[in-house]
Amino acid sequence: MSTPFVAETTFHVRYAETDAQQVVHHANYLVYFEEGRSDYIRQRGRSYADFEQQGFFLIVAEAGLRYARAARYDQRLTIRTWIAEVKSRGLTYQYQVLAADTREILVTGFTRHLCITRSGQVTRIPDEWRTWIGS
Amino acid sequence: MSTPFVAETTFHVRYAETDAQQVVHHANYLVYFEEGRSDYIRQRGRSYADFEQQGFFLIVAEAGLRYARAARYDQRLTIRTWIAEVKSRGLTYQYQVLAADTREILVTGFTRHLCITRSGQVTRIPDEWRTWIGS
Amino acid sequence: MSTPFVAETTFHVRYAETDAQQVVHHANYLVYFEEGRSDYIRQRGRSYADFEQQGFFLIVAEAGLRYARAARYDQRLTIRTWIAEVKSRGLTYQYQVLAADTREILVTGFTRHLCITRSGQVTRIPDEWRTWIGS
Amino acid sequence: MSTPFVAETTFHVRYAETDAQQVVHHANYLVYFEEGRSDYIRQRGRSYADFEQQGFFLIVAEAGLRYARAARYDQRLTIRTWIAEVKSRGLTYQYQVLAADTREILVTGFTRHLCITRSGQVTRIPDEWRTWIGS
Repeated sequence: MSTPFVAETTFHVRYAETDAQQVVHHANYLVYFEEGRSDYIRQRGRSYADFEQQGFFLIVAEAGLRYARAARYDQRLTIRTWIAEVKSRGLTYQYQVLAADTREILVTGFTRHLCITRSGQVTRIPDEWRTWIGS
Repeated sequence: MSTPFVAETTFHVRYAETDAQQVVHHANYLVYFEEGRSDYIRQRGRSYADFEQQGFFLIVAEAGLRYARAARYDQRLTIRTWIAEVKSRGLTYQYQVLAADTREILVTGFTRHLCITRSGQVTRIPDEWRTWIGS
Repeated sequence: MSTPFVAETTFHVRYAETDAQQVVHHANYLVYFEEGRSDYIRQRGRSYADFEQQGFFLIVAEAGLRYARAARYDQRLTIRTWIAEVKSRGLTYQYQVLAADTREILVTGFTRHLCITRSGQVTRIPDEWRTWIGS
Repeated sequence: MSTPFVAETTFHVRYAETDAQQVVHHANYLVYFEEGRSDYIRQRGRSYADFEQQGFFLIVAEAGLRYARAARYDQRLTIRTWIAEVKSRGLTYQYQVLAADTREILVTGFTRHLCITRSGQVTRIPDEWRTWIGS
């Protein structure tokens, strides 16, 4: 995956996402990352909802975030989302959150995921999805 | 139910619950109401989790809120929660959110609930729970 | 305002907005309403951020919601937002949340707002904004 | 700081904090960490609100989380919070989230903070607070 597909997702900061420091509360970037993942899959023609309906779940095993600059209410943000690593039983996404207008990087991060069954056991990512990821 | 049981639940406002107006974001009062309901049931010796494990769910059919005064980060709030009306297939909770120190009322509201099955059909509240509610 | 401007805003349900009942948590509709308001103002060429920068704030004095049907992760929702009433010191928005694909109504509601100054006193909506609202 | 003060904060998981996987949504652990910090300061006799009233803010520069086990609605959690490192212009907190009943570790993590002024410039933590932190 030398040149991974990068999904770009743009939206406005919601008022509810700000806090008393008058900037986006830092926990919301994990929500933005998650929406980046959802949109990554949509842009490639599928839905993560289908994955769960087939009885598989991607849980978050680890996450890391670096906050460089704050974002404000009504600001347009762009999330860049790509898959950085795929293993048999999991994968790692990376993210950049940019100010949509200036392309300045505000936050970077990653989430590492494991594939589990409905009963909670770690399992291999189904072949059909692994092929799709790698394509 | 002329003199209903009133649960009082006290906690601090979390930073994440504030918004750029530097007060608690208005949507969080529905979360506080819900935590009031959870604690109401705990204080009466049960858990809403048991209700769901038995295959029943209380969904929210209607909600109303009146905001009189704002709350700030780290402020201690007390939620007063009681059941205002019980019907065969639903019930209504009422709430007061007070400043814990002064007992000043900040927000009042209600939520009206319907009992549904796992498949989503409206159904009677199980007798055992209705007896418990009315006792 | 016999034929008010109605803003339509469409987005996907985020995973973080669901709860253990596997539908959108009811408090999030107040966040959707708020985003409806933000987009209403954007669609009419301004930003609520400007309103606050001029030293005025619209606080929520009252809210009501009726929940008819649930929404699920990744579902596309459309929020219809309009101003139902304007007074000298406040205004009321109304909302419909629709399934974007079927136009079925999921949730309806209103929020009543008061205009306050930075110091928290209720005040008249600035003339320039009242003219803009009514136009 | 060979034997740092460790604050323990115990509370129930709120329904709104769960997601469609029927466990606590992973972003909420940053909110739990934050409440751990708030309570750490309260347990040592002060409030972070005072820090901001003096014109200083601790922003989050970096965060990391490892998720070992999931938590469910109404489960009692204990957050253990301590200061792992203090520098002139920032500090690092570490956290463990435990199942309150079994003391099993569910999530671990850290947040690294910088001290800024109201205008956003990184600055030294005021001496009085640094002395308090180190005591």
